[in-house]
Amino acid sequence: MNNERTLTEASISANSKPKRTLGLAVAQLGPVQLNDTRESVVARLVAMMREAKSRGAEFLVFPELALTTFFPRYWMAEDEARRRFFELSMPSPVTEPIFRASLELHLGFYLGYAELTSDGRPFNTSIIVNRNAEIVGKYRKIHLPGHSDHMPAAPFQHLEKKYFSVGDLGFRVFDTDGVRMGMCICNDRRWPETYRVMALQSAEIVVLGYNTPSVNIHWNEPTHLRTTTHLISLQANAYQNGIWVAAAAKCGSEDGHHMIGSSAIVAPTGEIVARSLSEEDEVISVKADLSIGEYFREHVFNFAKHRRPEHYRLITERTGAGEPIA
Amino acid sequence: MNNERTLTEASISANSKPKRTLGLAVAQLGPVQLNDTRESVVARLVAMMREAKSRGAEFLVFPELALTTFFPRYWMAEDEARRRFFELSMPSPVTEPIFRASLELHLGFYLGYAELTSDGRPFNTSIIVNRNAEIVGKYRKIHLPGHSDHMPAAPFQHLEKKYFSVGDLGFRVFDTDGVRMGMCICNDRRWPETYRVMALQSAEIVVLGYNTPSVNIHWNEPTHLRTTTHLISLQANAYQNGIWVAAAAKCGSEDGHHMIGSSAIVAPTGEIVARSLSEEDEVISVKADLSIGEYFREHVFNFAKHRRPEHYRLITERTGAGEPIA
Repeated sequence: MNNERTLTEASISANSKPKRTLGLAVAQLGPVQLNDTRESVVARLVAMMREAKSRGAEFLVFPELALTTFFPRYWMAEDEARRRFFELSMPSPVTEPIFRASLELHLGFYLGYAELTSDGRPFNTSIIVNRNAEIVGKYRKIHLPGHSDHMPAAPFQHLEKKYFSVGDLGFRVFDTDGVRMGMCICNDRRWPETYRVMALQSAEIVVLGYNTPSVNIHWNEPTHLRTTTHLISLQANAYQNGIWVAAAAKCGSEDGHHMIGSSAIVAPTGEIVARSLSEEDEVISVKADLSIGEYFREHVFNFAKHRRPEHYRLITERTGAGEPIA
Repeated sequence: MNNERTLTEASISANSKPKRTLGLAVAQLGPVQLNDTRESVVARLVAMMREAKSRGAEFLVFPELALTTFFPRYWMAEDEARRRFFELSMPSPVTEPIFRASLELHLGFYLGYAELTSDGRPFNTSIIVNRNAEIVGKYRKIHLPGHSDHMPAAPFQHLEKKYFSVGDLGFRVFDTDGVRMGMCICNDRRWPETYRVMALQSAEIVVLGYNTPSVNIHWNEPTHLRTTTHLISLQANAYQNGIWVAAAAKCGSEDGHHMIGSSAIVAPTGEIVARSLSEEDEVISVKADLSIGEYFREHVFNFAKHRRPEHYRLITERTGAGEPIA
């Protein structure tokens, strides 16, 4: 047996990838009350764009359904929901200041909103906008949580399955100012398939927004788990795909309904490198070195070398859990 | 809008699943030196079986390649490796005491070993054995890490791709003394596909063993990541599948080559509920309530309700990372 013991300079030099940095920031949004106007929310978003820019940000992540209160907690007719909470166009006169600030600040962003298409289909949607204020990608939420029926005994509703259709655009990635970027929304972040499909398209970053109630209406889940399961989902999926993950909460108490904060930026090492402390409007930011992900994608998670899709078939062949395979 | 605020007794009662407990233990194994005999290792394993039983264990998890030193770190001819480190049968005269203790103690177990089949194929293998000392399931490692060529500049080798064939049995689950149990080995634990395929067969627990060098020979990875990435992989995959995960290290310094410890038992909440502290032989144990996983599998991870395999196709259609889909 032959076993050399010295790590040579040759093997260490494999470590010297050129840094490739991105100013990456998350704009956590405190509560948006039912009666707050979209104009007031847009002003808060634009203020955080200016702060992020002043701290070196080149890309800023806003929450899911950022323009209004988290309305799926309320039971109402679909028509009423669409009239009050959905966007018919993006940008629109009311959201145009966000795009104007993007252009002025040369700052890209991710934004979540409720989308009603011209042919009347409702989606929980997000967009990626580049530093020239151009929409380069759109995503429509695939993993809709909650229920579609009225649960009068629950302290609030979670009616995403009532108000939204399942997204029809898949999990795509978009080259955005030199960075290959994927996105998802809220509950998607708990599903490993979400990140894997984007990593298989060579994503370097996945960005997302969320609204996560502090109380689980379906069973008496210990409250602290709402935050810990959020964080380990981001951490493990960043690591297991060698990508950066940036996640923006809408949080705090919206008309008495509390949602978790803990917006976070996670490195491809699985480590949380920035995390919000408040449950209010708060910008967190890092100078993200994209080259860090390459070490993981070239070695432990070199998909071409190590993945064995012939043994993964059940992932696409089955939807629900079933019996053992023979 | 109609929004009830009281959590009724009706909805709380959905929380009262009958407990279904399993005495679950992990037998971490300290170093096995190159010149240690298999007999001496088996004696250590049997001693830990007695300790686990005395602490209420009904099932005990041993490490990967538990019977010898972690030989893939050494460059040698395949013939030499097979002669010195592989098992031609299981049980064999030398491993029979483990099975005898299983029967005597009414204690099931998971054991990893190098398997040479009767037709000469080499696998990194594990078995699940029930409380009657019967082998109920076998697994052959699918995600073989490392390399097959000689890396003379590296401080040691990681030659699993040289000494082992890729497993040919898939990721299966086995009903074992009333518990639906899956298994994997070492590097498999970092791949979300591993757990998902077993969760789609209604696994309640996944057990595994590992040998993880403290030094990454491929790039200058910060040492602490070797442990943190191990733990977040267990945690997130336990949570995201609503399963218990129990992982046993072989650890400490084998002839100067150090491996991480941190054997752990993780609940379906994603929380580490037991963790080894030493880098020696050490038993950790919990009384695992299997019903906890059901809350997650019925609600947030109700696969039938929420999964969308039509958007996961790339996971089985692609092996390596490629270009964006249109």
